[in-house]
Amino acid sequence: MSETGSSFSGAEPFTLAVDGMGGDGGPEVVVAGLAIAADRHPGSRVLLIGDESRLTEVLARHPKAAAICTVRPAGSAIPMDMKPTAALRVRDSSMRLAMDAVAQGEALGVVSAGNSGAMLALAKIVIKTLPGVSRPAMAAISPTLRGDAVMLDLGANVACDARNLVEFAVMGEAFAKAVLGLPAPTIGLLNVGSEEVKGDEKLRQAAEILRNSPLAAQFHGFVEGHDITAGTTDVVVTDGFTGNVALKTGEGALKMAFVLLRQVFRSGLLAKLGYLLVRPGLERMREWLDPRRYNGAVFVGLNGVVVKSHGGTDAEGFASAVDVAMDMVSHRFNESIRDQISRLETLAVMRPGVEKEQPAVAAVS
Amino acid sequence: MSETGSSFSGAEPFTLAVDGMGGDGGPEVVVAGLAIAADRHPGSRVLLIGDESRLTEVLARHPKAAAICTVRPAGSAIPMDMKPTAALRVRDSSMRLAMDAVAQGEALGVVSAGNSGAMLALAKIVIKTLPGVSRPAMAAISPTLRGDAVMLDLGANVACDARNLVEFAVMGEAFAKAVLGLPAPTIGLLNVGSEEVKGDEKLRQAAEILRNSPLAAQFHGFVEGHDITAGTTDVVVTDGFTGNVALKTGEGALKMAFVLLRQVFRSGLLAKLGYLLVRPGLERMREWLDPRRYNGAVFVGLNGVVVKSHGGTDAEGFASAVDVAMDMVSHRFNESIRDQISRLETLAVMRPGVEKEQPAVAAVS
Repeated sequence: MSETGSSFSGAEPFTLAVDGMGGDGGPEVVVAGLAIAADRHPGSRVLLIGDESRLTEVLARHPKAAAICTVRPAGSAIPMDMKPTAALRVRDSSMRLAMDAVAQGEALGVVSAGNSGAMLALAKIVIKTLPGVSRPAMAAISPTLRGDAVMLDLGANVACDARNLVEFAVMGEAFAKAVLGLPAPTIGLLNVGSEEVKGDEKLRQAAEILRNSPLAAQFHGFVEGHDITAGTTDVVVTDGFTGNVALKTGEGALKMAFVLLRQVFRSGLLAKLGYLLVRPGLERMREWLDPRRYNGAVFVGLNGVVVKSHGGTDAEGFASAVDVAMDMVSHRFNESIRDQISRLETLAVMRPGVEKEQPAVAAVS
Repeated sequence: MSETGSSFSGAEPFTLAVDGMGGDGGPEVVVAGLAIAADRHPGSRVLLIGDESRLTEVLARHPKAAAICTVRPAGSAIPMDMKPTAALRVRDSSMRLAMDAVAQGEALGVVSAGNSGAMLALAKIVIKTLPGVSRPAMAAISPTLRGDAVMLDLGANVACDARNLVEFAVMGEAFAKAVLGLPAPTIGLLNVGSEEVKGDEKLRQAAEILRNSPLAAQFHGFVEGHDITAGTTDVVVTDGFTGNVALKTGEGALKMAFVLLRQVFRSGLLAKLGYLLVRPGLERMREWLDPRRYNGAVFVGLNGVVVKSHGGTDAEGFASAVDVAMDMVSHRFNESIRDQISRLETLAVMRPGVEKEQPAVAAVS
């Protein structure tokens, strides 16, 4: 199970490198999640990185996870509140070693539930950004009334300029094509109103650039908060601060609805009987909206598959993040996204006016 | 019904001045909303301002509204997409005349479903900002799992600095005391994480100021999107861009839940029977979460009661906005909020560092 005792040689790359120490739940949740994922992805092989004795101890209780994992010891782990600049200086962290494995071709993708700012900074340095991309973004799929949609940025960049937003639009479109299989995904720019005069200068500039770009036909214009779940567009583009708040606010609202619904169904004998009658449909609805099902945000714009699990998730949620990474690796989604993004270089984003934008503040800090 | 034929003399002020032309639905929705409000607020008197012939024609079909309304003709109406700077130059708009009525003591409050940027600009010029307040904010009450909470800013200021956020905290706390009746409301600052290092400089500065202010004991620190509906704090403070997106995203998510729920209850005979059994509880839940019930955002920090209805609302929603204004007028909430906000002048918000903030971009534009 540990690397020295592993039967796997270095020739064939691991499917994924997994940071065993990331997230609020630590190795317990990571390994329990891998046990669930092992069933869904037979034949996959995981390089599990972290505190060797702790990981070995937890794996002993999860034989399914142990069967697909090879443990690689790491000298340290990045705390959830460490600043990215500090995290970059830690050479032997589990997160760093997982990134190294991808950069060196030892693994095809990486999953961590750890500190997202540190993860982004490390990915940029170790795995590197694609040509033409100035800042990677965090993208995820979220449920809407018209099917799934892609939303980005979800927190990689708290402050963005017009150029960043345009890049996010290009990357989001490529992601929607590759992962959702849409031939020509529509794109909306999140704003406080749909009128052209709304929002600030950078939003109006980004809209202007998109209207004059090769994506013009797919660009829907500004969308508002309620358009996200309405599914008005296939891709919703926003800065990382707003995207992070919107994602969590939407999840919170759905959670409130389910808590209240539970109260309704427990409010008396007739209600309990009613619950039994609608349970199958309700369960399907709950499963479809389950935030854990959508766990696994992808850092797009990088030269490799990098998936971030929510830090506070449980084993089921971590398994979803592993699913996302496995899918991207096995269907070569990242290559497809990379090819699509290559159009960024030909897209005239640096129009007059955009350069005048104030320099964007450093990413997640 | 029109002013010349009115039996009301100038002595006793009107309860409210209402912009008859605001909102996507125009006079039809406004008057139908007033008809609903008339039942709930017997004895109230409304100065209804707008296109005289259109308003008279619509009032003829709503006798309950006609019974409480006096029509005042206005030469024009502010379009929903007009820039605030342009709106300020229109002297005879229905919105402007409604503000004038409050400024001159003819009416105790104003309600409009019109252009929010124009409304804020006009309110600042005509009704005026309270001493110590640099920018009014839009506040509203939203449902949470632990009762109602106050959220601000919801769109009055798309860009904010640390000082603005601190002012919003003070105003939100005063609003929660006055309108929710809480003795010591707790305050959260919306961010992308609860750790102190998260977010940008202005958020960390605002948090630092609040931690050293008379509100320190009530200041909970940073909260995230999911904390809004969890009811983690009684007041959630954010900039107008993020607040607007969060509000609409939360409403959109709840709407999606109800649409899916309807599909579940229609998915077969047993489900339909189940629906009949749980209907009373479901109806209560739906009513409680109904966005129309929470329609009516209050511009806080002004020298009068100014309530903004959502532009796209229906008659029921407009009636809720009228409810909010009527409540504030009859319970003298604005006086109470004004007294609370007076502490702003004693609160040391202009600490070193805050002044270095870049000048905030002009409000909604």
